[in-house]
Amino acid sequence: MLQVPSSEYAGPRAVGIRMTEPLLPGLSGQYGPTEAALLDAFHRFDKAHLVMLTEEELIPPDDGAAMLRALREMEAQGVASVRNDVGGGMHSGEQYLVRALGYDVGGRIHLGRSTGDFGAVGRRIRQRSRLVELMQSLTALRAAAITAAERHIETLMPGHTGSQHAQPTTLGHQLLAWASVLERHSERAHGAYARVNQSPAGAAIMTGSNFALNRERTAALLGFDSVLPNTFDAIQSHDDEFDTITIAAGVNLSIARWSNDITFWSTQEAGYLRLPDRFCGTSSIMAQKRNPSILPAMRTAASESLGGLVTTFAALNVTTGEFGGDGGAGLHHAFDSAVRGAGWLVDLLPSIELDEERMAEMAGAHWAQATDIAGELVSEGGLPWRIGHQITAVLVRLCEERGLAPSDVTLALLDEASTEYHGEPSGLSESTLAAALDAANFVAGRTLYGGPAPEESRRRLPEYQARLERDTATLDGLVSRLEAADEEMERAIDALVG
Amino acid sequence: MLQVPSSEYAGPRAVGIRMTEPLLPGLSGQYGPTEAALLDAFHRFDKAHLVMLTEEELIPPDDGAAMLRALREMEAQGVASVRNDVGGGMHSGEQYLVRALGYDVGGRIHLGRSTGDFGAVGRRIRQRSRLVELMQSLTALRAAAITAAERHIETLMPGHTGSQHAQPTTLGHQLLAWASVLERHSERAHGAYARVNQSPAGAAIMTGSNFALNRERTAALLGFDSVLPNTFDAIQSHDDEFDTITIAAGVNLSIARWSNDITFWSTQEAGYLRLPDRFCGTSSIMAQKRNPSILPAMRTAASESLGGLVTTFAALNVTTGEFGGDGGAGLHHAFDSAVRGAGWLVDLLPSIELDEERMAEMAGAHWAQATDIAGELVSEGGLPWRIGHQITAVLVRLCEERGLAPSDVTLALLDEASTEYHGEPSGLSESTLAAALDAANFVAGRTLYGGPAPEESRRRLPEYQARLERDTATLDGLVSRLEAADEEMERAIDALVG
Amino acid sequence: MLQVPSSEYAGPRAVGIRMTEPLLPGLSGQYGPTEAALLDAFHRFDKAHLVMLTEEELIPPDDGAAMLRALREMEAQGVASVRNDVGGGMHSGEQYLVRALGYDVGGRIHLGRSTGDFGAVGRRIRQRSRLVELMQSLTALRAAAITAAERHIETLMPGHTGSQHAQPTTLGHQLLAWASVLERHSERAHGAYARVNQSPAGAAIMTGSNFALNRERTAALLGFDSVLPNTFDAIQSHDDEFDTITIAAGVNLSIARWSNDITFWSTQEAGYLRLPDRFCGTSSIMAQKRNPSILPAMRTAASESLGGLVTTFAALNVTTGEFGGDGGAGLHHAFDSAVRGAGWLVDLLPSIELDEERMAEMAGAHWAQATDIAGELVSEGGLPWRIGHQITAVLVRLCEERGLAPSDVTLALLDEASTEYHGEPSGLSESTLAAALDAANFVAGRTLYGGPAPEESRRRLPEYQARLERDTATLDGLVSRLEAADEEMERAIDALVG
Amino acid sequence: MLQVPSSEYAGPRAVGIRMTEPLLPGLSGQYGPTEAALLDAFHRFDKAHLVMLTEEELIPPDDGAAMLRALREMEAQGVASVRNDVGGGMHSGEQYLVRALGYDVGGRIHLGRSTGDFGAVGRRIRQRSRLVELMQSLTALRAAAITAAERHIETLMPGHTGSQHAQPTTLGHQLLAWASVLERHSERAHGAYARVNQSPAGAAIMTGSNFALNRERTAALLGFDSVLPNTFDAIQSHDDEFDTITIAAGVNLSIARWSNDITFWSTQEAGYLRLPDRFCGTSSIMAQKRNPSILPAMRTAASESLGGLVTTFAALNVTTGEFGGDGGAGLHHAFDSAVRGAGWLVDLLPSIELDEERMAEMAGAHWAQATDIAGELVSEGGLPWRIGHQITAVLVRLCEERGLAPSDVTLALLDEASTEYHGEPSGLSESTLAAALDAANFVAGRTLYGGPAPEESRRRLPEYQARLERDTATLDGLVSRLEAADEEMERAIDALVG
Repeated sequence: MLQVPSSEYAGPRAVGIRMTEPLLPGLSGQYGPTEAALLDAFHRFDKAHLVMLTEEELIPPDDGAAMLRALREMEAQGVASVRNDVGGGMHSGEQYLVRALGYDVGGRIHLGRSTGDFGAVGRRIRQRSRLVELMQSLTALRAAAITAAERHIETLMPGHTGSQHAQPTTLGHQLLAWASVLERHSERAHGAYARVNQSPAGAAIMTGSNFALNRERTAALLGFDSVLPNTFDAIQSHDDEFDTITIAAGVNLSIARWSNDITFWSTQEAGYLRLPDRFCGTSSIMAQKRNPSILPAMRTAASESLGGLVTTFAALNVTTGEFGGDGGAGLHHAFDSAVRGAGWLVDLLPSIELDEERMAEMAGAHWAQATDIAGELVSEGGLPWRIGHQITAVLVRLCEERGLAPSDVTLALLDEASTEYHGEPSGLSESTLAAALDAANFVAGRTLYGGPAPEESRRRLPEYQARLERDTATLDGLVSRLEAADEEMERAIDALVG
Repeated sequence: MLQVPSSEYAGPRAVGIRMTEPLLPGLSGQYGPTEAALLDAFHRFDKAHLVMLTEEELIPPDDGAAMLRALREMEAQGVASVRNDVGGGMHSGEQYLVRALGYDVGGRIHLGRSTGDFGAVGRRIRQRSRLVELMQSLTALRAAAITAAERHIETLMPGHTGSQHAQPTTLGHQLLAWASVLERHSERAHGAYARVNQSPAGAAIMTGSNFALNRERTAALLGFDSVLPNTFDAIQSHDDEFDTITIAAGVNLSIARWSNDITFWSTQEAGYLRLPDRFCGTSSIMAQKRNPSILPAMRTAASESLGGLVTTFAALNVTTGEFGGDGGAGLHHAFDSAVRGAGWLVDLLPSIELDEERMAEMAGAHWAQATDIAGELVSEGGLPWRIGHQITAVLVRLCEERGLAPSDVTLALLDEASTEYHGEPSGLSESTLAAALDAANFVAGRTLYGGPAPEESRRRLPEYQARLERDTATLDGLVSRLEAADEEMERAIDALVG
Repeated sequence: MLQVPSSEYAGPRAVGIRMTEPLLPGLSGQYGPTEAALLDAFHRFDKAHLVMLTEEELIPPDDGAAMLRALREMEAQGVASVRNDVGGGMHSGEQYLVRALGYDVGGRIHLGRSTGDFGAVGRRIRQRSRLVELMQSLTALRAAAITAAERHIETLMPGHTGSQHAQPTTLGHQLLAWASVLERHSERAHGAYARVNQSPAGAAIMTGSNFALNRERTAALLGFDSVLPNTFDAIQSHDDEFDTITIAAGVNLSIARWSNDITFWSTQEAGYLRLPDRFCGTSSIMAQKRNPSILPAMRTAASESLGGLVTTFAALNVTTGEFGGDGGAGLHHAFDSAVRGAGWLVDLLPSIELDEERMAEMAGAHWAQATDIAGELVSEGGLPWRIGHQITAVLVRLCEERGLAPSDVTLALLDEASTEYHGEPSGLSESTLAAALDAANFVAGRTLYGGPAPEESRRRLPEYQARLERDTATLDGLVSRLEAADEEMERAIDALVG
Repeated sequence: MLQVPSSEYAGPRAVGIRMTEPLLPGLSGQYGPTEAALLDAFHRFDKAHLVMLTEEELIPPDDGAAMLRALREMEAQGVASVRNDVGGGMHSGEQYLVRALGYDVGGRIHLGRSTGDFGAVGRRIRQRSRLVELMQSLTALRAAAITAAERHIETLMPGHTGSQHAQPTTLGHQLLAWASVLERHSERAHGAYARVNQSPAGAAIMTGSNFALNRERTAALLGFDSVLPNTFDAIQSHDDEFDTITIAAGVNLSIARWSNDITFWSTQEAGYLRLPDRFCGTSSIMAQKRNPSILPAMRTAASESLGGLVTTFAALNVTTGEFGGDGGAGLHHAFDSAVRGAGWLVDLLPSIELDEERMAEMAGAHWAQATDIAGELVSEGGLPWRIGHQITAVLVRLCEERGLAPSDVTLALLDEASTEYHGEPSGLSESTLAAALDAANFVAGRTLYGGPAPEESRRRLPEYQARLERDTATLDGLVSRLEAADEEMERAIDALVG
């Protein structure tokens, strides 16, 4: 007899059945040790599939009950270790059941099912978990950013464009921009979640089954919001893989951009802030070193996400059914680092050590306020904008040529620039010029919708908080639905194992 | 006098104002010849900004009216050519107005505005246009796929996994899978559209303005659905760039995957289909050649999109304000090829030349139906699934060793396999075996939800059509809103120019 | 006293020295468990640095000897396990020596050295090992390809372009093309090796040291071919990282392309070949399945390499000194899969199961020989090439319209095509036409330099073998030089430890 | 008659020959308007192929002479415009000759040749041109870097790691590091050139021809260094495409890294340098702006190269013969930007405006010299390195806690740190401590091989210059060989046209 004894059953690819040689090591694919979270997803699928098969009377009720009971015993012992003990992988449930209950019982679990289902169900359950985890990180970081924004609603500093001082602004205003970015990432993640949390179960490898599977039931037990309505699509389309990894990659990119800003602000040259020691490494040779090590780690994470995204995309450009997959390594790495980075920032934002005096001083030290001089040439001087702008440009050039800082500027100098430009003095008063040179004034005057004036930021803050509460509630609701499905699964099993 | 005469005004970077040297050629950036669609976006911004400035009395009403009149004259002559004549670029409106109306009037348009606004407004208007165009292509292709699915609802063929025959299925069922993928792409595109179609206008370079701009009014005139509530975010975040290009890249990837399938089906070896001549090139040396040239073009387009996406992502990993941008070249290329590819498939689907006889013959010629033999060993033979599966595996191996095709299989042979496996005959009847070997039966039996049985596909078809109609209506509504904004803009201008 | 007792020394970042908080978990960087190969590289650097310090009398001779003796004891116990026991990482040598010999002795090893040296020396030693390993794989696969080419020097098959039959050729000729590709990969790898195998040691973090280190001596002991002549460059340039990963990525791409060909040839539709069972998986539902699992694995490996390459490149686009690195994960993965893939092909090439009859039949079944009909219209018919080509094109179209295969073609048909084209018969003889239609003749006639005629392939074979021998000898020489450096290191230690 | 009159000949894909429909617009591929440099490469191939066909008597000598004469007439009128007038593309030579001389003569040029040859020959000629151009840019930039290094051999500044001050160094030393990087890029480019400059000509589409083509002769006329010895490889391998683009991408990455450094140095916060006005843009709103626009352009170019490299790699992961190519767009863009960036730096290096006083001041203002205090605790204090290092670390922490700069440090403070660490004073003298705190001393003491001490940099400079001269001579030799081939071509044509 060629048959493998049930006590040694290790999956259908046994030598002497279809094949005459063992598989090369390294090609095991669906077999072999598997991480706990994925085994847990397979386990849930095993349970839901068995409940459905039993309820639909596609297998004898006693066999169904026996298998469900055995799976509960497995849970008592620890799903991951028991499953890895029998070989691991997507078929570890069947292997466990055949070994425990023999082929006559355990050999019935896989009816109407395929590795295709396993791959797609396992992947989608994992993706939705990662998306939930990420959305929770995003709202936590958003809360931290809003809180820090409120604290720094008046903290002056220069904003940069093209790597040069641009205009005075506040740290709080920039942190509200973080919150806006995080809102959009949450929205993207929710969209991806809705597409991912649809059930492929019952689609087998592409055609489903001629056994009368109840796909709606399996889907409900697994917490899926709906059933994918085409079995070929359910297993073979794979657009979810690219969709989902772009979410985490995008978050990593935003985190990296913020990390780049903090990196610059923390240089000795900028001197705007320091990170607490727990975020910093030192050097084996340079005794003075405090390297803010989380910053390059967040930056590099974006590049790693990009690599993972490229792998995913490039690997999918094949014929249907040819995709070998990469086991989702890039996807999980991208989520890991996005969640890690968000967590670091939640820790960092309240503890970062600012040199607010230096920040405020630099806000007006290198002509970032020039826009307002031009503006006063319009408001008080009655000039068209472009002329006001050009006169101010001449003024700045004259000052640079003479080594003068903004604090050195006099009305005479402005009039000289104006006269050089178009033969007439500026028409401004001393006090207007002085006010225009004040970086705090610059910010305070920007009360337009969404502007950096503290009074305007205070108007917007409650709206940011309200949107955060709304999104948090949505996320909680979604988690509750998953928990309710878990409870329904256990009730259904209770009913069958009697 | 250093001043540039208004008739030669070419933007604020004139030698003798702020700068002492002309800019190196190739660094013009915001100046220089510009494609018509982008100039059109800048033009709309110029109009909306002027309407708002005039309505809010931030500039003298006569100057506002004169500039709006001049812009209407420009329209009469052709926006793109007039603007490129005065130098092109984002500031071509100001350059035109200064040259036409002098500094005293034309020099007023840029009040409260920056190249930052221009970049963000122009980019978002362009992105929303591309997304609309893409969504229209997606619904057109979805309609074509559903129509073709209906026509081929009974067209048998082998489905493949791992590059090998897997199971019999229908072409129609696969085309419904296309429709499902296209639905999801439309959903993604709608999500991105909602995030993109928010107004940055009035945010200037990061802090907005201390002039009392009415950002809501400008937004409404430009057809934006809302106003971005933080001026720093509005200009400096750039997450829309990655968000939007992933939409087109994802579509290109799906098109490439379908192209890869068609490529395989059109090989001489497969012989399942041919493309009409208009899709094919020939060779300068091989007189027989009919190369289906659209197929590698669609495939390569995915790789090009991936390149564009990588450029976008990698270029964004900088400090805030440091991003130089790549002019959106990758983004537009990705949308161009997605729209082109969808159009090609709309043309191809109804005209493709199938060899249905060959397809049907191959559906059962290489054991794709084996799953159903195992199934009958369960249904009729009463065996557990795994045993039925393994007996069938032995049968296939025996046949291969003896050079027998499925059509050569007898009950005796199956019984031999069964006996080899576990010492007992199969228990099947001749007629059951014959039915299990019939690929058409295989498909007809898969009536489960979403399965390939023609009767099930016919049940699902109206739902596909209904979702298509729903999405088409949504898209039409969105286009109508844009058109209504255009009309409001012209009404507002009429009111001001008297 | 704040000092960490020497028995607990775990590196310079102790709380109470420079820092007031422990580092966040996950930021350990240069500390923590380390793979054996990298620890081995660090170990060699520890030994070479100690030899040099002692020889140059930069540390007391007894202390140097004591430390070298302790490192030999470590070797007796197992380098990797001892080093990981004291914390792992680049400083595990120092940690071991301080714990074993106290600060007064063990605290002397790091003189003039930095983590920068460790990173660069460790990385380059690892890279050169991977390159040597890869070059050995490349020559092994080249040998296998040449051997298989010789065996299949007359094995007819169709060559494809644009996914369609192009011209008859031989499998052997294609395998010689593999050998040419592999030659170039070896050449690239040798070039990269020469750039990588230069010593950064002694460059510390960028400025070297004001202790009189003998960089040439350290380099020689470590087997480096020369010393990098600028200490800033030695540590901070990082161009080797991109350089080296492109080598492995390129190899993976070539392997993927061959894998793609074999995938197509192994489809049921092509039917040209089968892979032995050890390369194949089966299915849990489709009992007939033999999926050639190595093929998608090789294909996906190329996409993974591309991802790794993208990560490396993108992460390097920072300021000098800002690169956090990704630990070389992508690089090592790329080398692993290139070496694995080459090994699989070495196993596969002699064991692949060809259907040579089917291959030969298909070589002429779909007009791949058309080029030779056109050629005879030139040679025998005296026509210009383009006219011969166009007449043949008409002939093929007529045959397709009438459902005729090449084997059905008569002289009358050719004359009809010729007459349709330019009003004159073809002028060919029956026998010439028959010869032109013979795929074997097609190949046999291509005796030009490098052509597929067996007689020409046989002329080229010895040259391929000679180049392989030359490259193998070069590679052996390079390995010998590394071994000689190891021996010199042990002799030097012997001399010092007395 | 179906035949296209010779006066309208537009290539072999005429309706009524092989095909029954015109090709869709946008699929022209090998036809259509073509850039001049590529047309020039096709033209050279036309000439070389004709010379060889005529010399080998494969076409009538008068016809060969007539065609060569016609091509010379074409040259008199302008190759690009004449070729684009007849349709452009790779077959524009044949189209011109058929139109000018009729089918009987012009129809003979394509004998034994294919679009495959054209693609491969054209691509390789273009690649070698781009590589030559790039190597010339690399040597020009290397010369500029060496010259600037000499000028700044004593210009002190802080070097950074982890975005923080690391150690004092000189700008000159860093510029020699640039030179080292550029040397390696030249070496890589030379390696790629040697692989690219091999002739595919005569390989047709994969099998060459059964006409007795002289591939060696064609290769020599085209300036190729050798003939690719396998016709399948010559046309179908495509590894040169990835190989060549990595060269330019790598150069762009190095340029981007330098650009990132200069960007940081040019911030107001760093204040180390300014770029002359010609490299800078301004702002339409911020009158003070001087944005160093070349810097983000060089940075983004690296990301664009990466995108192009990804496209190339991903597109090649297909079956042999399936590659559609992307027309080399990414490759040429990468070379364009590398050459442009190198040119900008050649202009910038001698004209950059340094604030040497600020650079020198900052070299020692933030503890970059700490390594030398630790060193003196070893040299003068007799302590082991690690203890010296940790005492210094305590010193820096104490100073930070008390708000003291390096210039505030006293021996008492060092002794306090030493005592805190291990209960003993430091044992240093006041003068030793003062010397250790001097950043200029730090640099001057690093005289080891390759170190930043001016005296050592001066020792290394002549070696840099010598290697530059060697590489320049090699490059000149290679260009001469290409010119000699051109001359040989013209002599050969003279001989044939009589």
